[in-house]
Amino acid sequence: MNAEHPENQGPAVAYGKNRAVVDYVGPQVDCGRFPIKRAAGETVTVVAHAFSDGHDHIRAEILYRKRQQSEWAVQEMTYEVDDEWSASFKVLELGEYLYTARAWVDHFATWQSDLRKKLEAGQNITVELQMGAELILAAAATAEPDDARKLREWARTLQSPDSLARASDVALGETLTQMMRKYTDKSLAVTYDKELAVVVDRPKAVFSTWYELFPRSCGQGGKHGTFHDCERLLPEIARMGFDVLYLPPIHPIGQTNRKGKNNSTLAMPDDPGSPWAIGSSLGGHKAINPELGSFEDFQRLIGKAGEYGVEVAMDLAFQCSPDHPYVKEHPEWFRWRPDGTVQFAENPPKKYEDILPLNFETDQWQSLWEELKSVVLFWIGKGIRIFRVDNPHTKPFIFWQWLLDEVRRDYPDVIFLSEAFTRPKVMQRLARIGFNQSYTYFTWRNTKWELEQYIAELTKTEIGEYLRPSFWPNTPDILPQYLQYGGRPAFIIRLLLAATLSASYGIYGPAYELCVDQAIEGREEYLNSEKYEIKQWDWDARGNIRAVVERVNRIRRQNPALQSIRNIELYPIDNEAMLCYGKMTEDKSNIIVTAVSIDPHHKQSGWVRLPLHKMEIDPRRPFLAHELITDDKYIWQGEANYVELDPRIMPVHILRIHKGLRRESDFDYFM
Amino acid sequence: MNAEHPENQGPAVAYGKNRAVVDYVGPQVDCGRFPIKRAAGETVTVVAHAFSDGHDHIRAEILYRKRQQSEWAVQEMTYEVDDEWSASFKVLELGEYLYTARAWVDHFATWQSDLRKKLEAGQNITVELQMGAELILAAAATAEPDDARKLREWARTLQSPDSLARASDVALGETLTQMMRKYTDKSLAVTYDKELAVVVDRPKAVFSTWYELFPRSCGQGGKHGTFHDCERLLPEIARMGFDVLYLPPIHPIGQTNRKGKNNSTLAMPDDPGSPWAIGSSLGGHKAINPELGSFEDFQRLIGKAGEYGVEVAMDLAFQCSPDHPYVKEHPEWFRWRPDGTVQFAENPPKKYEDILPLNFETDQWQSLWEELKSVVLFWIGKGIRIFRVDNPHTKPFIFWQWLLDEVRRDYPDVIFLSEAFTRPKVMQRLARIGFNQSYTYFTWRNTKWELEQYIAELTKTEIGEYLRPSFWPNTPDILPQYLQYGGRPAFIIRLLLAATLSASYGIYGPAYELCVDQAIEGREEYLNSEKYEIKQWDWDARGNIRAVVERVNRIRRQNPALQSIRNIELYPIDNEAMLCYGKMTEDKSNIIVTAVSIDPHHKQSGWVRLPLHKMEIDPRRPFLAHELITDDKYIWQGEANYVELDPRIMPVHILRIHKGLRRESDFDYFM
Repeated sequence: MNAEHPENQGPAVAYGKNRAVVDYVGPQVDCGRFPIKRAAGETVTVVAHAFSDGHDHIRAEILYRKRQQSEWAVQEMTYEVDDEWSASFKVLELGEYLYTARAWVDHFATWQSDLRKKLEAGQNITVELQMGAELILAAAATAEPDDARKLREWARTLQSPDSLARASDVALGETLTQMMRKYTDKSLAVTYDKELAVVVDRPKAVFSTWYELFPRSCGQGGKHGTFHDCERLLPEIARMGFDVLYLPPIHPIGQTNRKGKNNSTLAMPDDPGSPWAIGSSLGGHKAINPELGSFEDFQRLIGKAGEYGVEVAMDLAFQCSPDHPYVKEHPEWFRWRPDGTVQFAENPPKKYEDILPLNFETDQWQSLWEELKSVVLFWIGKGIRIFRVDNPHTKPFIFWQWLLDEVRRDYPDVIFLSEAFTRPKVMQRLARIGFNQSYTYFTWRNTKWELEQYIAELTKTEIGEYLRPSFWPNTPDILPQYLQYGGRPAFIIRLLLAATLSASYGIYGPAYELCVDQAIEGREEYLNSEKYEIKQWDWDARGNIRAVVERVNRIRRQNPALQSIRNIELYPIDNEAMLCYGKMTEDKSNIIVTAVSIDPHHKQSGWVRLPLHKMEIDPRRPFLAHELITDDKYIWQGEANYVELDPRIMPVHILRIHKGLRRESDFDYFM
Repeated sequence: MNAEHPENQGPAVAYGKNRAVVDYVGPQVDCGRFPIKRAAGETVTVVAHAFSDGHDHIRAEILYRKRQQSEWAVQEMTYEVDDEWSASFKVLELGEYLYTARAWVDHFATWQSDLRKKLEAGQNITVELQMGAELILAAAATAEPDDARKLREWARTLQSPDSLARASDVALGETLTQMMRKYTDKSLAVTYDKELAVVVDRPKAVFSTWYELFPRSCGQGGKHGTFHDCERLLPEIARMGFDVLYLPPIHPIGQTNRKGKNNSTLAMPDDPGSPWAIGSSLGGHKAINPELGSFEDFQRLIGKAGEYGVEVAMDLAFQCSPDHPYVKEHPEWFRWRPDGTVQFAENPPKKYEDILPLNFETDQWQSLWEELKSVVLFWIGKGIRIFRVDNPHTKPFIFWQWLLDEVRRDYPDVIFLSEAFTRPKVMQRLARIGFNQSYTYFTWRNTKWELEQYIAELTKTEIGEYLRPSFWPNTPDILPQYLQYGGRPAFIIRLLLAATLSASYGIYGPAYELCVDQAIEGREEYLNSEKYEIKQWDWDARGNIRAVVERVNRIRRQNPALQSIRNIELYPIDNEAMLCYGKMTEDKSNIIVTAVSIDPHHKQSGWVRLPLHKMEIDPRRPFLAHELITDDKYIWQGEANYVELDPRIMPVHILRIHKGLRRESDFDYFM
């Protein structure tokens, strides 16, 4: 396959004649070590850098196949610019596809091009026509009988031309060109020396809208909430436009070292404990906290949610309370201290006495890995296909790579979301080794510069090929300062940024819609956090932003441009408190421009510059900018257009751009 | 070596415990497919991205060796930022070195760091000290007897501390730390899965100053010049500061289709023909045109040049005149046309009737390759170690890769300069597969934007690791428009740009020093080009710039900062007609700032901003900027300093920055 290294060649007699070079094929992640990611139905646009020595014409094509197939499909590449070629293929099935590219010298095309130049320069072409005839006869020798006959006829015309003009018309004509392309000689084709992979997930891996909810807080009358109570809330969750309902761990909660309110080390008898302190005498990762309901109740919730188009996602937190059955059954999976106690989780000086980490350096790592895999398969067996993985960066990368590969082999529809709020390279590695979605730093990116830099990093670098961002304005662990200080407009701004910048986003509710902004003094943690106590929220509390949530999620569903993040383009706007960006579908039938004021306090305005040529909009004609939140309509024209946003009214415009408005009757649309 | 792929592991019992990750090691070229380049004595600074899960401390080290050695040398890496580590090693011998990196979790360092935090938080550390003792005892078990005894003693101190304070002093003390570093457990170290290569050339591959001279034009009294005549010019060439004397082909020149003056297809009987039309009845690539002299004369020239510190470089033009012996002896190496003639070189509609290309697609490519290799070895046998390769991009890449590898195996001191004025990816590929130096687009980069972009591309991207630019303001083929229109100042500007931007540069002389600017109308070719006729130059002609050439080359020799290109930094200057850039040695003992006006017509001035912090200069103190061409001295202070350049005087400042000037006595230096 590789012409670059003599030792990799087939018969020695051929390799020295391999003049084409395929220097690069992309997209590729980490030199091809890891696959790129796509969703079923998406397109992979392959780029190759290919050329030959001299001025010879070459051709190039991509080869692609599902990994388990043995035959390559082939797609001719188009020359773009600067020795770069491109071609696309659609990925339709879940699983893994491979792709690469090859190139070869096209002597006939080279000959045609030279002939054309010589004709233009008025040079004698008699001998050239003879040479062309030789090429045609060589092709005829490999052609099907009918084609061979035609080719030989054309060769004769070139060999003994009635007129040079007619002969050169034939030589350069489309029919002969097509036929010669068909029988092009690929025997000296050079194939790129790597086969690259693309993992194809279901579309929800790209476009999803998450709602995090503590089921125990869904009860009424002060009672511990149940799966049954969650069912009651499903219509509202669906109405707000969420399609993933993510539940914190639903397993029995440990008693030993249980945390009380506000993470106190002293729990009161009725404190429910943190759901992440998994395991008690009632069971561990394969059990359900009976206060929430039975397995039957859980599966009914999954079913009901499905009826509303909502999928239930589970938390995968591979850690144990001191009461977890593993501690007795598998003491070898834990780290024991010289005083005979099990090592609890620490990030000194912070202590998590209610949680024991698993010791992945145990000699018994193989049984540990198998057990953890069995946990995933257990819940897959109950109907779960989405897992939000808690702190994956505190378990070995090599473990995740193995686990995700193992699970995906049989269940390519499973989605794993990486909750790794940690250093950039660690987050990126987790995404590369197989997580389908990733929490991001969006939670702390507030200023225009920060947001623009971060969006560019996520979408315009190699990262965009493998890390699918999930934007979370809040989580039970994080109430960012921006939300603490900005009031209701801040909650609207961060929601709309998340929902329009990223294709996947989520909120921890109802704390979010209710604009809960009380933190522990000087911290980014909720005061009276739901992690340590049961809440009963008043979903209809004054000032809630449910209507905005419902509206933006509807806009996301109705506008395919918003269902991707990689299509985002930042547009200049002359105000440091404002951000503007656009997303378009590939066919440009759906164009959404979002303008956001990131100032929750003051009215802001600015002039945005739109790339009308990319939108295929005539700068000399007016066009319609339809504001989708308020249903306002603006007539805009040219690149520069004015936007004014008042946080007390609505700090965001989501504008659908209509290209039309050419004929007078179009004006009826909005008058 | 590789922890990432289970199948590459050693015993299955270990791989699951390999928690460290080495994500990337660099520099690397094309994913490690090709080596980076260095000169003997230079440093390779290796960067690794390495981390582990959790908050564990890791350590990392580079492994490096000469390819033929079996043992790795080891060098501990330093943590820089963002999970990036670095370490350096020097390459002293010619040939190839390999390097990679590995990382492992350092449990003792993690333990120390946690202990420190717990102490600061006032937590009880009794059990922690026990755990530390366990780690120390484990190290003792692997230590040399003396060290083991010390380690066990420390362990005892931690196990039964007289006082916690003293025990923690021991635990965190430098002595124990160093000892534990020495016996760190690398059994779970993870090594990056690629071994990267660096090719080490002799220093001239990096820093060289070329003078291209047609020996046949060195005669006197109208006679055909000889090697003997060249000898006469050596003192002046050396005085001007050149260390490579590059001769166009010295072989017999064909008679058939010989070109006349100005590339005319009609040669007069006394026209000498193009030296690139190689081969006649007198011989081919292994023969010398007897009009130039004998082999003895040639080797005497090589010897004499050596005495002046000048090395003779030969042209390697793998093509033939129709009279070349190969045509009869090896007709299979040429392309034959249906009319029985050999195909001559073409780039339609241009024809090179005096030159036949070799047909690398011949079935006899193996004998052709061997013959061409024997040509190189033949001249190596005559004492040649530098080849300027003519149009390498018109021969297969795979051939060059083989040839250069073959030659370099036995002669690692040979330097090949690629004369490929062609598309970017082709030029880059040639550099990657082994050419030591490369002609560049500098010849046509005239404006500030062009030059700054190009310098950044050449030095701040992966290209800088493998492509060593050679800057040529002119060649016998190219008289750029800038030189045609700018007069003598243009010649000075382009010379000084080449000499100060790049570590290697060359001129085609004496046409350059004499400011010959007459081109064929509307072309970039010399009128009455020396390629087709014998010249006898008046080296002392009025207006020549030999004094400037001599001065700039002396400055290059005396200032090591100018002997590299990768150390260049562009500095802002607020004038679009001016360029400013600096180069420093690693130890900052030599700092050169160059300011150039690229306007050959008008006086220009501007304020340059110097990065004083990088120069380690105190912005509150004056410093000395010593102009090395004119010997003028300026007292500068702060970042912003004024530069004024008049093309009628000298359009360039080459300033050596002296950091001193702190005490009054320093002022004596320039007063």
